[in-house]
Amino acid sequence: MRYPLITLTTDFGTSDHFVGSMKGVISGIAPGAQVADITHEIAPFGVLEGAFVIGQAWRTFPPGSIHVVVVDPGVGSARKPILVQAGGQFFVGPDNGVFSFILREEKHRIRHITAEKYFRRPVSRTFHGRDIFSPVAAHLAAGVKPGRFGKPLDACILLDNLAPLPAEKNSWQGTIFKQDRFGNLITNFDARDFRALRTGHFELVAGKARISALRSNFSEGAPGEIFVIEGSSGYFEIAANQASAAGLLGCTAGSPVKLKLT
Amino acid sequence: MRYPLITLTTDFGTSDHFVGSMKGVISGIAPGAQVADITHEIAPFGVLEGAFVIGQAWRTFPPGSIHVVVVDPGVGSARKPILVQAGGQFFVGPDNGVFSFILREEKHRIRHITAEKYFRRPVSRTFHGRDIFSPVAAHLAAGVKPGRFGKPLDACILLDNLAPLPAEKNSWQGTIFKQDRFGNLITNFDARDFRALRTGHFELVAGKARISALRSNFSEGAPGEIFVIEGSSGYFEIAANQASAAGLLGCTAGSPVKLKLT
Amino acid sequence: MRYPLITLTTDFGTSDHFVGSMKGVISGIAPGAQVADITHEIAPFGVLEGAFVIGQAWRTFPPGSIHVVVVDPGVGSARKPILVQAGGQFFVGPDNGVFSFILREEKHRIRHITAEKYFRRPVSRTFHGRDIFSPVAAHLAAGVKPGRFGKPLDACILLDNLAPLPAEKNSWQGTIFKQDRFGNLITNFDARDFRALRTGHFELVAGKARISALRSNFSEGAPGEIFVIEGSSGYFEIAANQASAAGLLGCTAGSPVKLKLT
Repeated sequence: MRYPLITLTTDFGTSDHFVGSMKGVISGIAPGAQVADITHEIAPFGVLEGAFVIGQAWRTFPPGSIHVVVVDPGVGSARKPILVQAGGQFFVGPDNGVFSFILREEKHRIRHITAEKYFRRPVSRTFHGRDIFSPVAAHLAAGVKPGRFGKPLDACILLDNLAPLPAEKNSWQGTIFKQDRFGNLITNFDARDFRALRTGHFELVAGKARISALRSNFSEGAPGEIFVIEGSSGYFEIAANQASAAGLLGCTAGSPVKLKLT
Repeated sequence: MRYPLITLTTDFGTSDHFVGSMKGVISGIAPGAQVADITHEIAPFGVLEGAFVIGQAWRTFPPGSIHVVVVDPGVGSARKPILVQAGGQFFVGPDNGVFSFILREEKHRIRHITAEKYFRRPVSRTFHGRDIFSPVAAHLAAGVKPGRFGKPLDACILLDNLAPLPAEKNSWQGTIFKQDRFGNLITNFDARDFRALRTGHFELVAGKARISALRSNFSEGAPGEIFVIEGSSGYFEIAANQASAAGLLGCTAGSPVKLKLT
Repeated sequence: MRYPLITLTTDFGTSDHFVGSMKGVISGIAPGAQVADITHEIAPFGVLEGAFVIGQAWRTFPPGSIHVVVVDPGVGSARKPILVQAGGQFFVGPDNGVFSFILREEKHRIRHITAEKYFRRPVSRTFHGRDIFSPVAAHLAAGVKPGRFGKPLDACILLDNLAPLPAEKNSWQGTIFKQDRFGNLITNFDARDFRALRTGHFELVAGKARISALRSNFSEGAPGEIFVIEGSSGYFEIAANQASAAGLLGCTAGSPVKLKLT
């Protein structure tokens, strides 16, 4: 028998014992279960960033995969631990919006995790990644039915303003979801909703720059040129060829971006 | 047959080939054995920090797990490679104090690793993680009996001053074990030994601050407030709500902390 | 049945969804296959650094292992995706020199990966790690024969100047391949080619320093001393005892090093 894969996405960094402790708990409950790190470098308390990353990564995983997401500034407070079933996969984490990208796109069922018999005891007030989310994910992997963890919830917290807002005619006010490792700026302009950008008739304002160049891969860009690219994430990105658009523009996650179709 | 889990805790960072080489060696000896990274971000030569991290993480792992810990400034010198059995688990690494937290709490047996037939050849002078510790752990996982690696040792090096020292009446001089990713400062005041702090009648002096607030989770703290919390590590921590206590206080690992019960 | 191990070496960092997405794709095609991270911290576009790291790590892995290497500034351009068989193992990545260390030392067969049926669809222009290299590696692990991925290539791109160049009599002009985590500077003076250094009759000029001390392990060095050591990588390294030679000398990857035998 093979357990389903368990993934971890946290803001714990990798210099403490936190991630190791989660893996220990999982291996005690589901020995031999594979654990894949997605990232532990979400900015501390970066719920939107965590939501974006798991929203991107989950689609590449096979049915039945279990994703533990712990970006949890409210740990130990009244915020609920939840179990989400969506897209044939499972998501375990706090009810704070971190599953927003999945919930807005997929049919889903949400449960409030309350069955303490699946928790690690004693439950600390500050490390539910170790004491609640990891053991629940491991018991789920080991075959415990979702209904055993708690009762259904009608709704959970969703982040708002994920999509750009209409401004003047043919204009939208958007934002940067994430600055990636290379300094590419992933905007919230979804390629499915803003197909018109593919025509190249647009102006994007970010920082002090007005960008109207569209390129299809990075190496098409001229040295120093800042351009728009249809990113592998499904969103338009602001990029440069072997250079950091973020650094050149002075923009990062949360920076405003204005689009005008021309 | 499933091999026991092997964990890795090092100060190697993750930008070199070092960790990959250890995984390669293990997979050659114990194909399919699971290897879990605890952390590779121990500060270079940070024996106390490494000791603290493995001292925290190991308890979450199941019996039989094998922990390789390589924080090893004396690599290639006369310091001994050792194999420790404690708490139903195994620990492989240098004899420099890195297993202190485990040894002071658990019955144990220590062996001096000398059986060169289990080493990778030739043994370099500077990378025993690859050439001694990883292959020994993998052979152990593959079923080699502990006694085959070398003779028992009566004792090994222990870090001293792990616990706070008594100062004036009702006062102790302690220290910070570790600054975690969020800037929480983990003190060496063990919650089992200093239960009196739970009453809230104390003053903790760290940097220029005098702290007497006790909170049970992070989100109970007021904005900007610095408080004490009983940490998930079993030690009292100095923390702030969605802010870095380390940054606010100018303290980090090794900083002194004075406790006075009031 | 056990799949061969798949390793990942990239310049993707670990703060984005990129690595997680690669693991997801692999787990969908070869469920249960082990994936070992070698590093994701290659400097962005650092082809030489990536070449060095995989050139070091691969030898520790068992026959049949599959190494995915994605340091790929030309992604989406005309550069070819390739599959290399060498040393009993497999290497998947872009044709940009990243396999140079392996190719110059081992008999090899190179194929141009063109069989789109093994790609993830649609193939993005900017993330072939997810859409081409990971699924090809996973299909290879799952038993697809190398010949199915594309036709043989006679040659591929090799980095030049990997070895030091002869200068005046008994002198060579070399360089630093990599600065490791501890600040050791790994030169391109191969210990097999420059055995004369073992005699200690040499002068190495790096930054403003003239180094002629040879030590066999780090702790032999006096405090503050900068010395040469025969590194675990097979190259001579410039090092200091519990200090960063890179910091002391102001040198890093790419810095020139001049050797004179005396």
